[in-house]
Amino acid sequence: MIKIYLETIILKNMKHKFVKDITQLLKKIHYYPKNFLPLHEPSFFSNEIKYLNSCIKEGFVSTAGRFVNEFEENIKKLTNSKYAVAVVNGTSALQIALKLVGVKSNDEVLVPSITFIGSVNSVIYNNAIPHFVDSEINSFGVCSKKLRKYLENNTIVKNKICYNKNTKKIIRALIVVHIFGHSAEILELKKLSKDFNIPIVEDSAEAIGSYYSKKHLGTFGKVGVLSFNGNKTITTGGGGIIITNNKSIALKAKHITTTAKLPHKWEYIFKETGYNFRMPNINAALGLAQLKKLKKILSKKRKIFRVYEDYFSEIKGIRLMREPKNCKSNYWLQTLILDKNYSKYKNLILKETNINNIGTRPCWKPLHKLSHLKKFPKMNMSIAEEIYKRVINIPSSAHLTMKNK
Amino acid sequence: MIKIYLETIILKNMKHKFVKDITQLLKKIHYYPKNFLPLHEPSFFSNEIKYLNSCIKEGFVSTAGRFVNEFEENIKKLTNSKYAVAVVNGTSALQIALKLVGVKSNDEVLVPSITFIGSVNSVIYNNAIPHFVDSEINSFGVCSKKLRKYLENNTIVKNKICYNKNTKKIIRALIVVHIFGHSAEILELKKLSKDFNIPIVEDSAEAIGSYYSKKHLGTFGKVGVLSFNGNKTITTGGGGIIITNNKSIALKAKHITTTAKLPHKWEYIFKETGYNFRMPNINAALGLAQLKKLKKILSKKRKIFRVYEDYFSEIKGIRLMREPKNCKSNYWLQTLILDKNYSKYKNLILKETNINNIGTRPCWKPLHKLSHLKKFPKMNMSIAEEIYKRVINIPSSAHLTMKNK
Repeated sequence: MIKIYLETIILKNMKHKFVKDITQLLKKIHYYPKNFLPLHEPSFFSNEIKYLNSCIKEGFVSTAGRFVNEFEENIKKLTNSKYAVAVVNGTSALQIALKLVGVKSNDEVLVPSITFIGSVNSVIYNNAIPHFVDSEINSFGVCSKKLRKYLENNTIVKNKICYNKNTKKIIRALIVVHIFGHSAEILELKKLSKDFNIPIVEDSAEAIGSYYSKKHLGTFGKVGVLSFNGNKTITTGGGGIIITNNKSIALKAKHITTTAKLPHKWEYIFKETGYNFRMPNINAALGLAQLKKLKKILSKKRKIFRVYEDYFSEIKGIRLMREPKNCKSNYWLQTLILDKNYSKYKNLILKETNINNIGTRPCWKPLHKLSHLKKFPKMNMSIAEEIYKRVINIPSSAHLTMKNK
Repeated sequence: MIKIYLETIILKNMKHKFVKDITQLLKKIHYYPKNFLPLHEPSFFSNEIKYLNSCIKEGFVSTAGRFVNEFEENIKKLTNSKYAVAVVNGTSALQIALKLVGVKSNDEVLVPSITFIGSVNSVIYNNAIPHFVDSEINSFGVCSKKLRKYLENNTIVKNKICYNKNTKKIIRALIVVHIFGHSAEILELKKLSKDFNIPIVEDSAEAIGSYYSKKHLGTFGKVGVLSFNGNKTITTGGGGIIITNNKSIALKAKHITTTAKLPHKWEYIFKETGYNFRMPNINAALGLAQLKKLKKILSKKRKIFRVYEDYFSEIKGIRLMREPKNCKSNYWLQTLILDKNYSKYKNLILKETNINNIGTRPCWKPLHKLSHLKKFPKMNMSIAEEIYKRVINIPSSAHLTMKNK
């Protein structure tokens, strides 16, 4: 009786110690004059104000003006894509990307359960059906091995179209997401895409400046998407971009994201339903200024990773997420991974750090578990659920100042 | 034979003269150093740069920051609305507004044929069916008289729901648009809305600063919408806002336009499909600066109207559009109306003015005539077609400098 009581006390204190240690470490290694350490803030330099002023002076802040073109040109150069179409945000970019690869009402779209809600919303906006697939434990991206087996057992390809044998619906696309800026198994997934005739839409919302084998992420799929929301590596306030090497896809992207108005000097004629998704010039101006500092931002984020890794390598039960083999990651969000038997501490760490004004967050709750998404088709989801249990993101802004060990 | 020949020559010259006279008049009354007179450009003062700089300095350009709230507060004050929710553009605002009044898949929505394509796209995005209604010749807004007769003959109200007797579908909303900033017959339409149990969504995209009987447009319907696109009276780059006096509608508007994330300090939990439609802080900062100059802009636009009217009152066959009785219009776009028997000159005037670098445009082509929208239900559309034949918008920017007569 006394033994059990003592064991409980010891366990409780140990637990407490582990949670406190991590919190104290985060407090110790950062300078943060604001008394609050956000998860991720944008970093500004000097061009931002200059470019915004140009917008006002030139009188172009909206659908006309030079910055949207310049921003698109610079993204093309960075990613080595032939075409780029800037839009209002990453979710809109993804919504249109799915349309561009042929997704129609009632089609199924394979989408990971471990991703931001926008990935699956973009499917729903197209009146298509999200079909959830599992992730793998290294990159947190779609598991190509598990997916291949699942497709072999559950689909049939007829006339280059992949059908779900259970629902009889067409599987029209696969959304690959590069989580926290780390590349998914993109080559394996590309092979699978070819074998099953399912085009890839590459959700690289989190992955600007990330590469697989020196090729920028977002350029492996038929269409790729980047995001420039305020919490991303660089920001346009709100914004996204569609990248592709396919000319007709690019032309269609530009056309339908700019209301699908037919070219005419004064008449307003439309032949199909378009979208008011063009990135305003003022947001592109901000983005261009940010883009010019991307290299600097990436090197700072890489340094932050190294400092964190140095410190966390000494703590048992937890490790820092590293870029996958052959990849160069942008380290958008720095990520702690708890050992399996330490996952029980996740919520305590989140609570303790947030109480102490350190912005941390868990991975997104697996989407197939959300009440309104439970009804959709899915495979076995064991790894997605494990990732959710073991992952914590920690402060990652490029301008963080940290104490070297 | 000779007589007919001479008559043709005379007619041709007369035609030529009328078209040339209008073009020459527009050239004469404007100073335009840039050698090009745009249809509508934003006017900037000094606060714009100041507020944008604050955004950068404070580090908030995206989904966090004070300017969105301040912008919403100022719109509430201006319009005397209880609630305001700022979003990425007017079309998105309208898409959500329809959802907020209960529009579901397969419902019909009454929408004028004379309006910007965004009005009807917002219906289609909701998987609802646009049902085109005619306009009246004074305000160019929905004709309440004609619509009442049409609804009497074609609908039945059961349990407070209006059904289309022909299609058996529910008519769930009526979109009223205030064209070029002039109020539609909003009181008559409101009465009709009550009689047939069809809530009004008030598309006031063009009508900031416009009033019917001292009440701001957009506040008559269950939900109203304003736009701040670059071509509007004031701009946020791209942007729109939803206004309402209904608290639960307002709360839902804010919730679903900000991804519908449930409140939690770190978890990502969603119970329904939301939208990534929040106006970025940087766009709100620009909007707030503009809003503070609205009075000045409106008085300049009113002055421009008076100068135009002075000049055009002398030309036979054409007149300037005036604000309707009991209304105060923002005169967003100044509008020439050709007499019926002069409508044949419309395209020639558009051509001649645009060749001479004067930005003019016709009214939108009636939407029920567009190839992809022809299939949708509609009433007799005689006035919409007449408006299209007789209307030309002329340069209207608030900062125009004109020669008084």
